[in-house]
Amino acid sequence: MALITVGTMAFDAIETPFGKIDKIVGGSATYVAYAACNFVTPIQQISIVGYDFPQEEMDEMKSRGIQLDGVEIVPDKKSFFWSGKYHIDMNTRDTLVTDLNVLADFNPVVPESFQGAEFLMLGNLMPKLQMSVIDQLRVRPKLIVMDTMNFWMDIAMDDLKAVLKKIDVLLVNDGEARQLSGELSLVKAAREILKMGPKYLIIKKGEHGALLFHENHVFFAPALPLEEVFDPTGAGDTFAGGFIGHLAKTKDISFDNMKTAIIIGSAMASFCVEKFGPERLKEITKEDIDTRLSEFVQLVNFDIDLV
Amino acid sequence: MALITVGTMAFDAIETPFGKIDKIVGGSATYVAYAACNFVTPIQQISIVGYDFPQEEMDEMKSRGIQLDGVEIVPDKKSFFWSGKYHIDMNTRDTLVTDLNVLADFNPVVPESFQGAEFLMLGNLMPKLQMSVIDQLRVRPKLIVMDTMNFWMDIAMDDLKAVLKKIDVLLVNDGEARQLSGELSLVKAAREILKMGPKYLIIKKGEHGALLFHENHVFFAPALPLEEVFDPTGAGDTFAGGFIGHLAKTKDISFDNMKTAIIIGSAMASFCVEKFGPERLKEITKEDIDTRLSEFVQLVNFDIDLV
Repeated sequence: MALITVGTMAFDAIETPFGKIDKIVGGSATYVAYAACNFVTPIQQISIVGYDFPQEEMDEMKSRGIQLDGVEIVPDKKSFFWSGKYHIDMNTRDTLVTDLNVLADFNPVVPESFQGAEFLMLGNLMPKLQMSVIDQLRVRPKLIVMDTMNFWMDIAMDDLKAVLKKIDVLLVNDGEARQLSGELSLVKAAREILKMGPKYLIIKKGEHGALLFHENHVFFAPALPLEEVFDPTGAGDTFAGGFIGHLAKTKDISFDNMKTAIIIGSAMASFCVEKFGPERLKEITKEDIDTRLSEFVQLVNFDIDLV
Repeated sequence: MALITVGTMAFDAIETPFGKIDKIVGGSATYVAYAACNFVTPIQQISIVGYDFPQEEMDEMKSRGIQLDGVEIVPDKKSFFWSGKYHIDMNTRDTLVTDLNVLADFNPVVPESFQGAEFLMLGNLMPKLQMSVIDQLRVRPKLIVMDTMNFWMDIAMDDLKAVLKKIDVLLVNDGEARQLSGELSLVKAAREILKMGPKYLIIKKGEHGALLFHENHVFFAPALPLEEVFDPTGAGDTFAGGFIGHLAKTKDISFDNMKTAIIIGSAMASFCVEKFGPERLKEITKEDIDTRLSEFVQLVNFDIDLV
């Protein structure tokens, strides 16, 4: 049961109210892979890096069942670089620097060895590139999950809408759901977005949890109330990795199993924010994950007698 | 099993993005009572109104088991009046007018017939008045729940802290929890507030649900994702009314039953916002409430196998 992940592998510089780091590995595909590999392998990564991306990071990934045959290494350019600063409430951030570097030339090629994968996670990326990967797969995966962002809605809405017709699950945050649909109410926004192609919609609300919409059903997963959010970078990608990782592991793409998958995504995201970059994701054990999942059960479990 | 409610009975003028109304019955005790009387009677109301408060509203309340012996009617003054305008996102509002009128002279007197009540809901009110009611009760109620707001933290923090030492459950919103504790993280804020007196703390986050803290436990109840929030006025009071109404009905003040009570409070609040003022609360039936409760079960229910 293979899972293809497509997205960026990058360097980030991050400043939060709690600290600052000038250079740490990041990128959407990095976070997705580090989260998903706890549940399923192989992860088949499609990305692009420059000469400066650390070999030790690649080795670490490989040791966790992340195949890098689809990661192009450009010998004379630098890796994608992003720098951002979080506001005091940690819910908003300013982008300080975006150096595309190798990303400007990214033209993803699906290796022959990746054909036949049953799960596809399209990380946040130019919609045309996401479409290109879908088009290259000779057998349609059992489930295609797509992440995107407001930036692409601003400059490539038509391309984005074309991809929406091809996928099963869309992941956006609340602001993006409103922008995509033109509706202020998230319930109305979901109804409009589900008409655009995806059968399932996940609206991420950061510290306020996530909503899963499907037909007339809705499910809510809270975020774990944390004493400290150290660095939110990558939390959304980590959520996506936990979500699709669980679905790929169980091979069950029912609405009921997606509920569980969202709780697992939330649990993984709650680890991600505890340290800079993907550091914490590399430390945690199966036992840590299970402990955290039982905290989620405690958090939302209640008994009610309907008379 | 009697429940004493203390708070305002008032007129409101409300403007939301969806409509405008120049005069409708409102006030914290009004909402609490209309919500709680679905679960327990008698509700023993302590409040103050002017000559202009409608007799029909009083009759309606009495017909629902709300005793008004503790409601002072001032023959030559007007009822408390509040006017507010909601912003487009409905999470924030501007107060346009606050005419205290009779409220300036409010000096709550607990009627002899209310002595012995086992549940006390202190609606948002000057802390000294809340304290006065506690002091007048010869037998301490089994459970005292208190609502308050940032206004009292600004001008009467010492009085507020004195009341905190006397109560069991405090209800505040997220901003107020931060202000009261001086902590940005809600988990840290809760820990500090629980040191101030209350054994239980409920932090209301509006459309993002509510958190219940007790010792080292935390429980999260979502708000129902609604297609339209017509008017949020009174939602917090309605939540409080559903919460304490269920506890009084079941006579069970355990943490587990408080979880259920919070879900019931959230369900009642989800009705409140569907129409202006307490109108919707007067229409709903037991069947409506049960249907909504089962929607909450659907919303958060998931199965997870911890291996």
